Amino acid sequence: MRVAVLFFEGSEKKVEVVVKSGTPSLRALGQDYWSELVACCGATILSHISNDQMDAYLLSESSLFVWPDRLLMITCGNITLVDSVIHFLDQQGQGCVDMITYQRKNEYQSHLQKTAFEEDVERLNLRLPGKAFRLGHLDGHHNYVWHMDKVYQPVEDDITTELLMYHIEGEAADYLRGSDQTIEGIRQHLQLDALFPEFEFDEFLFEPFGYSMNAIRGDQYITMHITPQDGTSYVSFETDIDIPNECPELLNRFTDILNPSSFDLITFNADPKIALQPDVACVAHNQQQLKCGFKMEFQHFIKMAKNIGPALEI
Amino acid sequence: MRVAVLFFEGSEKKVEVVVKSGTPSLRALGQDYWSELVACCGATILSHISNDQMDAYLLSESSLFVWPDRLLMITCGNITLVDSVIHFLDQQGQGCVDMITYQRKNEYQSHLQKTAFEEDVERLNLRLPGKAFRLGHLDGHHNYVWHMDKVYQPVEDDITTELLMYHIEGEAADYLRGSDQTIEGIRQHLQLDALFPEFEFDEFLFEPFGYSMNAIRGDQYITMHITPQDGTSYVSFETDIDIPNECPELLNRFTDILNPSSFDLITFNADPKIALQPDVACVAHNQQQLKCGFKMEFQHFIKMAKNIGPALEI
Repeated sequence: MRVAVLFFEGSEKKVEVVVKSGTPSLRALGQDYWSELVACCGATILSHISNDQMDAYLLSESSLFVWPDRLLMITCGNITLVDSVIHFLDQQGQGCVDMITYQRKNEYQSHLQKTAFEEDVERLNLRLPGKAFRLGHLDGHHNYVWHMDKVYQPVEDDITTELLMYHIEGEAADYLRGSDQTIEGIRQHLQLDALFPEFEFDEFLFEPFGYSMNAIRGDQYITMHITPQDGTSYVSFETDIDIPNECPELLNRFTDILNPSSFDLITFNADPKIALQPDVACVAHNQQQLKCGFKMEFQHFIKMAKNIGPALEI
Repeated sequence: MRVAVLFFEGSEKKVEVVVKSGTPSLRALGQDYWSELVACCGATILSHISNDQMDAYLLSESSLFVWPDRLLMITCGNITLVDSVIHFLDQQGQGCVDMITYQRKNEYQSHLQKTAFEEDVERLNLRLPGKAFRLGHLDGHHNYVWHMDKVYQPVEDDITTELLMYHIEGEAADYLRGSDQTIEGIRQHLQLDALFPEFEFDEFLFEPFGYSMNAIRGDQYITMHITPQDGTSYVSFETDIDIPNECPELLNRFTDILNPSSFDLITFNADPKIALQPDVACVAHNQQQLKCGFKMEFQHFIKMAKNIGPALEI
């Protein structure tokens, strides 16, 4: 049972809620409110940063971002994010919701999760009738999304890019798995200061390894979570910045540095470019225009690799 | 919950047991014995064929083959094969076992299974200490194997080739998913008579679709199981014939006819060749010399496909 015990599911569940115009500011609910909300699914707030437009909380399992009219919560591990979503709907009243998406990313070990996506959807549908989709093949990487069944028109800069990297290798990966890494060292390996010079950072280093980062600038965010364990390593990066115009080399910089053997690119109303190495191929690509105003796109890339080393003894 | 209700897990669990020299013939145990054994995991015998060297039973969920000194049982769906294995060990006494391998193939929806591989291994290890391995990446196709921790020397022709095909497409796939298929029509589409002219066949057509086949010749077997449902289609083929010498075009004939978007090739002491189309690549390949005398090899192939169609509404 070695694998099950040591295993940590890095891949995330994610919820985004936009409240109706006229709803009191979500930021005014205060940190105690958000502490209680994240506790509903078993997470705690580790630290937070704020500016005049938003609050960013670093959680024991990923991140929470709060704007006056919007919240975005991401959880990893075996955390039941749906419990926090239901809590929010009960506390604030589902009538205040203008748009909600709930997403589950590809899991390494779905059978170790407390709930399946279909069960989460069943609970959500009892509160807010919605629609659910799977992008990608069931037996390959895939991504589930549920959204409230209501027309919504996102503002023009409401775009999201998610880059999910699996099986990282090379110098940076070795450093991330090493016993003497520091926050400063990780930032240097990932070139974060060079890539995001104007952002304010909040970071946390887990024991014995693992790194979480939020960064904000105005109303924009960046978040990155690293589960470096060999064999099930996983790095997620997400942002709402306009990558093609602001940082066109961003995605390739990360895939070059972290050298994943496979990765997924998921976008909402965004179309960032990624230049593929000759040994990398797209093995699944589909897209869906969601009624809630987002064009969601899923691409799964794999590095051709004849030999992946010896079998794993478990 | 549409997906969960309609979903059938085609991918198999498999056990192979060799009993020690001097053990009474397993064939002499008779059909009643095997009916009881397969009932332990919820399966039933649909039909059987025999010759002077072996018995082949077609099951409600896959197949059982019995030789005087060996048994091979394959189950699909949500059947707990490990229950039948434990029953056999209890009935016959684990002291009679010379070699045992227990395998679980890549599952579409592992969270819908009643047990995980690690749980099966825990139960098996209580009877017979063993070793367990995973071949392939956890987030891609992979194959689990457990074997008794005992040196064993298989006879020279004890070789196995498994070809597992996912997401079949094209004329044969359409026929298999159609409402008016017949056993004769399936044999023609798959060219079974031409490929295996000397074998005796036993076949079953499920409602509304699905096809299972055993075929035997002397002490050799072929077995094929088709779950054609669109989106989670799966075809498994397995044999102990010496493919390179007896039927070198076999694997490519099946991948040409069934046109899977991904497939796994798993071998035990066998090295059949497969010629890849230009749009197909191997994305994971590893091998393991098992202490029980088998060199096990796993290869996962994927067809490069930019667009896999629209998202699936669930």
